[in-house]
Amino acid sequence: LQVKDIGEFGLIRRIANALPTAPPDVVVGIGDDVAVLRTSRADYLLATCDVQVENVHFVRKAATAYQLGRKVMAVNISDIAAVGGIPAWSLVSLVIPEKTSLSFVDELYRGMADQMREAGASIVGGNISNAHMDIMIDVFLLGNVKPEHLVLRQGAQHGDAILVTGSLGDSKAGLELILHPDLVVSDSAREHLLSRHLTPEPRLQQGQILARSGRLHCMADVSDGLMSDLRHICRASRVGAELWEKDLPISDACKEAASNSNQKASSWALAGGEDYELLFTAAPDDAERIQELLEKEGGGPCRVIGKIVSKGQGIVVLGSDGGRTSFSLDFALDKGGWDHFHSIG
Amino acid sequence: LQVKDIGEFGLIRRIANALPTAPPDVVVGIGDDVAVLRTSRADYLLATCDVQVENVHFVRKAATAYQLGRKVMAVNISDIAAVGGIPAWSLVSLVIPEKTSLSFVDELYRGMADQMREAGASIVGGNISNAHMDIMIDVFLLGNVKPEHLVLRQGAQHGDAILVTGSLGDSKAGLELILHPDLVVSDSAREHLLSRHLTPEPRLQQGQILARSGRLHCMADVSDGLMSDLRHICRASRVGAELWEKDLPISDACKEAASNSNQKASSWALAGGEDYELLFTAAPDDAERIQELLEKEGGGPCRVIGKIVSKGQGIVVLGSDGGRTSFSLDFALDKGGWDHFHSIG
Repeated sequence: LQVKDIGEFGLIRRIANALPTAPPDVVVGIGDDVAVLRTSRADYLLATCDVQVENVHFVRKAATAYQLGRKVMAVNISDIAAVGGIPAWSLVSLVIPEKTSLSFVDELYRGMADQMREAGASIVGGNISNAHMDIMIDVFLLGNVKPEHLVLRQGAQHGDAILVTGSLGDSKAGLELILHPDLVVSDSAREHLLSRHLTPEPRLQQGQILARSGRLHCMADVSDGLMSDLRHICRASRVGAELWEKDLPISDACKEAASNSNQKASSWALAGGEDYELLFTAAPDDAERIQELLEKEGGGPCRVIGKIVSKGQGIVVLGSDGGRTSFSLDFALDKGGWDHFHSIG
Repeated sequence: LQVKDIGEFGLIRRIANALPTAPPDVVVGIGDDVAVLRTSRADYLLATCDVQVENVHFVRKAATAYQLGRKVMAVNISDIAAVGGIPAWSLVSLVIPEKTSLSFVDELYRGMADQMREAGASIVGGNISNAHMDIMIDVFLLGNVKPEHLVLRQGAQHGDAILVTGSLGDSKAGLELILHPDLVVSDSAREHLLSRHLTPEPRLQQGQILARSGRLHCMADVSDGLMSDLRHICRASRVGAELWEKDLPISDACKEAASNSNQKASSWALAGGEDYELLFTAAPDDAERIQELLEKEGGGPCRVIGKIVSKGQGIVVLGSDGGRTSFSLDFALDKGGWDHFHSIG
């Protein structure tokens, strides 16, 4: 069966029936033109959106509809996690050719609903439109944050330690495996890297622990790539940064894939993007305490990977070989370098 | 200059600089990954989304970027108006080929910003992605409503009068003028009809007046077409409806265009869609009072166009010639009829 066989309204009913029952703060949920929501009195409302476009962000033969559903939600949840917030409600705007199979749509929503349920959040509305060619899944996510827990990009201070959760470069390595099917790695590495690329897990719990610690000066998620996201922090905070290549957290699987494709794992960690780890800064004296807290509360390891310096220095990467490479904070000057492939998107 | 010349981040800065200053309830606005908003304590939060896809909802040669910007916002504001709400904040998700000219993007945002400003609302965030072909402008709009003013689709009662603001069919007539350039009408009719199609005005003031009256049983905006939107009301309210063809509010311009193309203006009024008028029901004794109130407070005329009947009757159109045409409330049975072209989108 295809979308055109049941039409827009039939599809909306099908989706609404398959979703979990809406929580009590949803006054009017999916199926109406407008979602009606009961907000908390004291919290700030958070709103973000991120889209997955076929043949731009994904190719259909590399990811299942279920994985795609999980990922588009994960990407948005990651943005909420990175300010210390909690996701609550989402609207999904789906643009699909009417010849799309219903099973694709079913699986897509199952993936979105699973990822949202695991984050304690729900899908409360959306819109479905026809497309001539590519599928586009646009997610609009609302969340809440206590004002005292809000952590923004701006706020990094000269001398701060720069920390990052988990590991970097895995997602890029997974993408390389998809783009180059002849690239040989062990089964366990392949599974790990593809999973990091296709179904990234937003660091929601970590974001909560870190925000509640009250010791962070700024935070962002690593979506565009470490260099690019750090540059956003630096620009917003009017500072520069120094990164230490030898301290970048890189998994053995990522090292294996990089080595087998004659590339540098640290380049993938610096510029790969889509890691959805949390990048943050804090006073150097607090770094150890934050690392202990995160470990103790089950958020896993985080690593000091550099320090905040003055704005004039831009971003400096200290290589493992002792070399220094400098990058401007000005996006307009990008003509190459680690993030040249992020011109748009 | 094209989008690729300044990149994603350059474009975001350009857009942010051109937008009006954010109001004080916007804690963090455009330019960050997440918008941070201060909600009112007592109000319900409203959330809706609607997209304009090139070659589905619009063709670039028929509408300017400015008109397109106004329209995509108007369509969303209309959804908020139809529940008695007030729009507040929007996120814009833009998917565009990187060869798009900057002036197109500038004009698009100018249109969106103008429409939002006129509604007392602002753009607080969004996302920009690359596309291979068609442009897609996806708008997420948040608003507020006092719980006592909230009017939903459900709630129509047997015996209710069915009313509609303004006039119906103009937008469809405007579309016909675009699709058939050889269709002859007077200059004033052409101007009126194209304006109704390309830059519809959401009935925000009318929605407020009607919701505050406390006399409405249900409301919806006429976006898919009178028949289709009335059917949504009937299904949600578990009732049927009778429409009186002779009482449909149709402008002289619409009649002129229909006549010159050998079509029935009432068919356009019944099924044309995109009128963005407000459709609502109330106890028959209240109908006159509501009409007077709306006129007195500057919301213009509204017309009684039928009545709510039992669910088993479906939707019955009483023709000006005395004929009766019945329609099922079940979308799945649509194989033709007035809204057969609304299979999806």
